[in-house]
Amino acid sequence: MTTSHYAEFERATRQYHLLGSIESLLDWDQETCMPPRGVEQRAEQLALVAGLAHERLTGDEFATALGKAERNGRVDEWASATNLREMRRRMERARRLPTELVRETAKVSSLAKQAWARARRESRFELFAPPLERLLELKRRAAELIGFEGEPYDALLDEYEPGARSAEVAAVFDELKKALVPLAAAIAKAPRKPDVALLSRYCPKESQAEFCRRVAAALGFDFQSGRMDVSMHPFCSGTCPHDVRITTRYDERFLPAALFGTMHEVGHALYEQGLDAAHAGTPAGQSVSLGIHESQSRMWENFVGRSRPFWEHWFGPLTQQFTSLAEVRLDDWVLAINNVRPSLIRVEADEVTYGLHIMLRFDLERRLMTGKLAVRDIPQAWNDGMRSLLGITPDSDANGCLQDIHWSMGAVGYFPTYALGNLYAAQFFEAARAAMPDLDDHFRRGSYAPLLEWLRRNIHRHGMRHRAAELVQAVTGRPLSAEPFVRYLRAKFEPLYGINA
Amino acid sequence: MTTSHYAEFERATRQYHLLGSIESLLDWDQETCMPPRGVEQRAEQLALVAGLAHERLTGDEFATALGKAERNGRVDEWASATNLREMRRRMERARRLPTELVRETAKVSSLAKQAWARARRESRFELFAPPLERLLELKRRAAELIGFEGEPYDALLDEYEPGARSAEVAAVFDELKKALVPLAAAIAKAPRKPDVALLSRYCPKESQAEFCRRVAAALGFDFQSGRMDVSMHPFCSGTCPHDVRITTRYDERFLPAALFGTMHEVGHALYEQGLDAAHAGTPAGQSVSLGIHESQSRMWENFVGRSRPFWEHWFGPLTQQFTSLAEVRLDDWVLAINNVRPSLIRVEADEVTYGLHIMLRFDLERRLMTGKLAVRDIPQAWNDGMRSLLGITPDSDANGCLQDIHWSMGAVGYFPTYALGNLYAAQFFEAARAAMPDLDDHFRRGSYAPLLEWLRRNIHRHGMRHRAAELVQAVTGRPLSAEPFVRYLRAKFEPLYGINA
Repeated sequence: MTTSHYAEFERATRQYHLLGSIESLLDWDQETCMPPRGVEQRAEQLALVAGLAHERLTGDEFATALGKAERNGRVDEWASATNLREMRRRMERARRLPTELVRETAKVSSLAKQAWARARRESRFELFAPPLERLLELKRRAAELIGFEGEPYDALLDEYEPGARSAEVAAVFDELKKALVPLAAAIAKAPRKPDVALLSRYCPKESQAEFCRRVAAALGFDFQSGRMDVSMHPFCSGTCPHDVRITTRYDERFLPAALFGTMHEVGHALYEQGLDAAHAGTPAGQSVSLGIHESQSRMWENFVGRSRPFWEHWFGPLTQQFTSLAEVRLDDWVLAINNVRPSLIRVEADEVTYGLHIMLRFDLERRLMTGKLAVRDIPQAWNDGMRSLLGITPDSDANGCLQDIHWSMGAVGYFPTYALGNLYAAQFFEAARAAMPDLDDHFRRGSYAPLLEWLRRNIHRHGMRHRAAELVQAVTGRPLSAEPFVRYLRAKFEPLYGINA
Repeated sequence: MTTSHYAEFERATRQYHLLGSIESLLDWDQETCMPPRGVEQRAEQLALVAGLAHERLTGDEFATALGKAERNGRVDEWASATNLREMRRRMERARRLPTELVRETAKVSSLAKQAWARARRESRFELFAPPLERLLELKRRAAELIGFEGEPYDALLDEYEPGARSAEVAAVFDELKKALVPLAAAIAKAPRKPDVALLSRYCPKESQAEFCRRVAAALGFDFQSGRMDVSMHPFCSGTCPHDVRITTRYDERFLPAALFGTMHEVGHALYEQGLDAAHAGTPAGQSVSLGIHESQSRMWENFVGRSRPFWEHWFGPLTQQFTSLAEVRLDDWVLAINNVRPSLIRVEADEVTYGLHIMLRFDLERRLMTGKLAVRDIPQAWNDGMRSLLGITPDSDANGCLQDIHWSMGAVGYFPTYALGNLYAAQFFEAARAAMPDLDDHFRRGSYAPLLEWLRRNIHRHGMRHRAAELVQAVTGRPLSAEPFVRYLRAKFEPLYGINA
């Protein structure tokens, strides 16, 4: 009987996630294929599927199946234990939020997105302030209902980074800040300056697409279990290890957008394709958190893709593919793609200053959640933060506090996962290097299988077996810290810019 | 209260069809985008959505909502009356089929499809016979459960052509046969022979795609509310008037495949895009039947697209687009695309002989349903029929009774709708011509709006208001007959081939 109780729970879990996979496909199609006028029907389709999924997760039937499986399940196996633990967490979380609050949040968010789009276009924060105010109220209410030990922000952060605590994240970020600010300043004063103009040379879209597909395949992206398309905002949509879809965008006057964008999404995709298909549709076959996901994308994009060894292999193919780059020197190329400069826009930020953008948002979000910061004071707080962290002042709210879509979607607590991704990536990469001291030689030969296999064995295959913090401890033997990332940045950027920060 | 009862029923109806629209997208994606290895998850997604839809349609909640709306609905409006009538019909039909029978049919069909694919590949009917036998048993049981007045086949035909009766269809087909056989024979003996070799001239895929898109747009296909892709088997997938997707396939050595395939699918798509969006997701905003749908595709593909007036406009653009056709003469082109010749394969058949292929299948299906024909005797019956109707004998079962996928999918009763489509098309087209005697002049100028507007006003806008037979009567003032189609064929092919059949 115990097996059948667990089997019943697992079946219900898979059905629930199958609805989620359909939602993902509807989203993917909307961004890549859907005719413009299909948008209204799509909203209805998405609402229907999301509603069905929510009903299943919060319904008595699921609770009963989960309860029986918990009492009689095969909790000796790691996968069963993972699935019971995680589905309990998700169900509790979902059941604490009344349908009316979920619906209201979706409605306000829909209005907020429109308001935000207009506010950004016209650079008028006051247009966005009222719906944001309302949305934050709903988020505060949600945090109270979900519950938290430390501060309200924890309840939101937990959605994206299960188990993470704001105070701990803040401590790591503080440690990181102490290193990033002087490093960025030292690079700014370095005599060596990248010739970034060469990144703007003309590269035809078709050639970019061809080159990006070659790189993606070389890194290990399986086109039999995935595809690559074009969308306004690049993303990776994985519904099972055998159907993982990435998108990119092409700017004929800025090759890095597609090139590093593709490697970033491939990093996400390799994680999704590396999950255990036998556990597909259950937490044992799902990614740990957004932060761990981001660690994979950042690793392939930056730690691998912006490294000199990587280009020692690919620079030949690159200059053959793009005639406009034929005369460029490898050193100049590597320096240009590693240009470090304080800038206004997060998504365009380099490896060194990126984290500072996140710290600003993390700080504002926490203060907004406790009410210490009022919505109307966001623009001022933003600009003060930019000055203090990056030494520059936004020329407008559009290029300042209105630049990101996240708040308008109600995604508060999401930003920290981007910076955590960098930290996880560095700590994992350091461990991988320790295990495989010849990693750079592999990259010089265009060989990525050793790194990928290591990631699969140590991270991908385990699904949600460990929380992020436990995974870091298990894989690297230490708790999360900013040190490996700081070491990585120093080891890379000091020789590159000829400095000693 | 009456309004709210109807509103509740309508809401449930829309939700049910919304699930259907999601199923359509999953199907479309599978044929056009899905990575090969995604197939297993897709089967699960499709089964889940189909199951949810079936549950909704047959559940007590829907029956209650429908019952209340029937007693208190606004049946004075045509749309409400249509929706109540049609949903009652669909619900009754679905409720008569036990879930176990539906599931068993899906399972056997899945096996039958695999068996059919192999049987066709190896041209061994005996591999397909056992699952077909089982499938036909299930179909006979379904027919008994659904019920019928005339013969069991009526119950199956009714799924695709609501309200049609086998005996009536047979009578019209007999009338048609009397004209087709001598006309085909006369053309075969005509001294004028098309130079079909010119259809095999090289036309690059990209140029074909560009030309097909131009033609599609000119006919009225709205790319803001639709898109065009490539798939193995061309189809049209319409989930609402604002999201209608067609596919085609390119053969660089046979332009007509993409060219007329596109016009065919555009015909389907114009119907879908012409349905009333205000009634989307309810029968008042849906197509009448497969036969009426096919009348639209055949009309645009053949009645318009293979006509001389059409090419008087498009022949210039065609010869400019494809250098291999630069020296061809308009008359030779028009004759070549209207090549008539008895052939083995239905989907490659011309306008004159196409109906004979259908009559063969219709006759076999009826006899299989009553048990007068045994499965093991299908090959012999097929070959006999081909000889008697078309004067040729298949060289193999692969090119004979194994050529079509329909039976392996359990789609018995589907074939007649193809031939009915031709008959409806001719009768509608004759009425359109009577209303607009200058239609050919419009075509000569590349103007299709008059015909499209006429179709929208007389057919598309009415959704399922009328059954097919009623619609024909309403639009043309007469019941369905083979005469208009025969008149159309004679008027077109006799002068083309210089004969008097």
